[in-house]
Amino acid sequence: MEMTGYWLGMAATVAFAVTAVLAVAPRGVDLFGVIVLGLITAIGGGTVRDLILDVPVFWAEDQTYLWVGIAASTAAFFAQSWFSRARMFRLMLYLDGLGAALFAIEAVQKAWGLGFGLPLVPILLGVVTAIGGGLIRDVLAGRPTLLMSREIYAIPVLIGCMLHAVVLSSWPDAGAGVAVALVILTFSFRAAAIRWGLRVPAWLTTTRANDRCKEQLE
Amino acid sequence: MEMTGYWLGMAATVAFAVTAVLAVAPRGVDLFGVIVLGLITAIGGGTVRDLILDVPVFWAEDQTYLWVGIAASTAAFFAQSWFSRARMFRLMLYLDGLGAALFAIEAVQKAWGLGFGLPLVPILLGVVTAIGGGLIRDVLAGRPTLLMSREIYAIPVLIGCMLHAVVLSSWPDAGAGVAVALVILTFSFRAAAIRWGLRVPAWLTTTRANDRCKEQLE
Amino acid sequence: MEMTGYWLGMAATVAFAVTAVLAVAPRGVDLFGVIVLGLITAIGGGTVRDLILDVPVFWAEDQTYLWVGIAASTAAFFAQSWFSRARMFRLMLYLDGLGAALFAIEAVQKAWGLGFGLPLVPILLGVVTAIGGGLIRDVLAGRPTLLMSREIYAIPVLIGCMLHAVVLSSWPDAGAGVAVALVILTFSFRAAAIRWGLRVPAWLTTTRANDRCKEQLE
Repeated sequence: MEMTGYWLGMAATVAFAVTAVLAVAPRGVDLFGVIVLGLITAIGGGTVRDLILDVPVFWAEDQTYLWVGIAASTAAFFAQSWFSRARMFRLMLYLDGLGAALFAIEAVQKAWGLGFGLPLVPILLGVVTAIGGGLIRDVLAGRPTLLMSREIYAIPVLIGCMLHAVVLSSWPDAGAGVAVALVILTFSFRAAAIRWGLRVPAWLTTTRANDRCKEQLE
Repeated sequence: MEMTGYWLGMAATVAFAVTAVLAVAPRGVDLFGVIVLGLITAIGGGTVRDLILDVPVFWAEDQTYLWVGIAASTAAFFAQSWFSRARMFRLMLYLDGLGAALFAIEAVQKAWGLGFGLPLVPILLGVVTAIGGGLIRDVLAGRPTLLMSREIYAIPVLIGCMLHAVVLSSWPDAGAGVAVALVILTFSFRAAAIRWGLRVPAWLTTTRANDRCKEQLE
Repeated sequence: MEMTGYWLGMAATVAFAVTAVLAVAPRGVDLFGVIVLGLITAIGGGTVRDLILDVPVFWAEDQTYLWVGIAASTAAFFAQSWFSRARMFRLMLYLDGLGAALFAIEAVQKAWGLGFGLPLVPILLGVVTAIGGGLIRDVLAGRPTLLMSREIYAIPVLIGCMLHAVVLSSWPDAGAGVAVALVILTFSFRAAAIRWGLRVPAWLTTTRANDRCKEQLE
């Protein structure tokens, strides 16, 4: 499990970097910007988590994350058209969802193990780890962030993290199997959202219309 | 005083979250985004302060801030029209100003107590605590930040923090009464700005016109 | 050398703050916003570096950086037209480039001395120190960040940091002279980019056109 998790983490780092590059590419970014934005997407969320936990950032302990993030961003830059192909892009999108699920569940585990603000803070840090890097990327690239879209990306992550907190507080001795099951569950929800283009329903979204009137009145 | 400050802090957390939700609502944000943005507004500034002070983030020590921020954001989401009513909105606006004053003065006290970079750093961290959360929210929501407006929001906070630094360095034994007086003073300035729609005068603003010409020339 | 580095650092702080103020001025920012944005540009990158290194932020140890940053921003606000003159602006631009080179090489040295994630992390933190403040400024001011431009600003910094890492790992006893040489080299590259208006060539930039088509198809 440990090793599988590690290799999955590396695959997810690749997916985070590659989807980041494809997301910002339409704006005409140079190789340097591509590497910075790819790397930030891949390691940004975990960095914020570690700063808040006040532990050494994970990529200083294991620089492989940096090498993989840089290599994947560079590859995505030079093989942009290959990665943009429908099939490849779809694969990356699913891998990105799997990565978000994996990073989130791992983060809950890490924060829980440190006994840090149970039960709420590990959940929060799980979500931050999964989506933080993408948020920073979008802000730096001048794109609307995930928070302003109705995509179902963070919600599966949030649910997975909450379930993990329930499990960890109810059965402290739950083995790694539960974590694996939760990663799969979280990913399945996200995969369904990708597959069937699910979006957050309108009634769970603030009413735009009313306020647009108000803005015009001002 | 301790307890009054605590309860005021919770009321301010509510106000920060609610005004945040009302600010981003016109853009059509889903419930998840609303909670994240409300929470970030409420706790973001204090989080940056604690990271710089290198002390545990305040909401890991007392999760009540998280619960209150989440509850207030959720309430604001579902009761958006109620909170948008002129009277309610105005109440929230004043409460938000009171919260900014309270958080700022508390932050100066906290940093001063740690003897951290006196006298300038506590002032700076007071301002960061009061406005940091709102800045992060606006960046994530794609709104122009407070720094680009001419609203009188941060200036009362800055003055309050500077006065607090003067007090703490001149009369180290000054009791809690002084802090209360400074919160009231800071809030009064902000309340006046809300009440009479005060704005930063043009001569204290960079000259837009000249440079617009320059931009056209480029 | 120590002292020269210190005074150069202060000159660079001035240049960072002044160029920041001139960059945001066209948007009509008030004095408070000018000081905040000038200060963030001057100290933001080093702050992120110190948070990641988990050492006290440099401006809490030596508040001179804050005083200089505040004074320079205020001066740039009131003497905007003077600093905007072609000759003065050009001087600031070069000084800003020299500052970026200096801060970057110093940061590599600092991180290397702490033995923090060698060799990749010091390089990364060198780049962050040089460009981080400007990135935060642009995000807060709603301007496109450096990453989205084709300006040759960060690339000389990156090359300088990489060379410094090579030197430090090959000749651990290399004296301060090497650092000085690297600052000069890094700055020369940037100065050439300013002098001859060099830009990142198109083939090192993601293809905008293809994707614009794709966007229209969506």
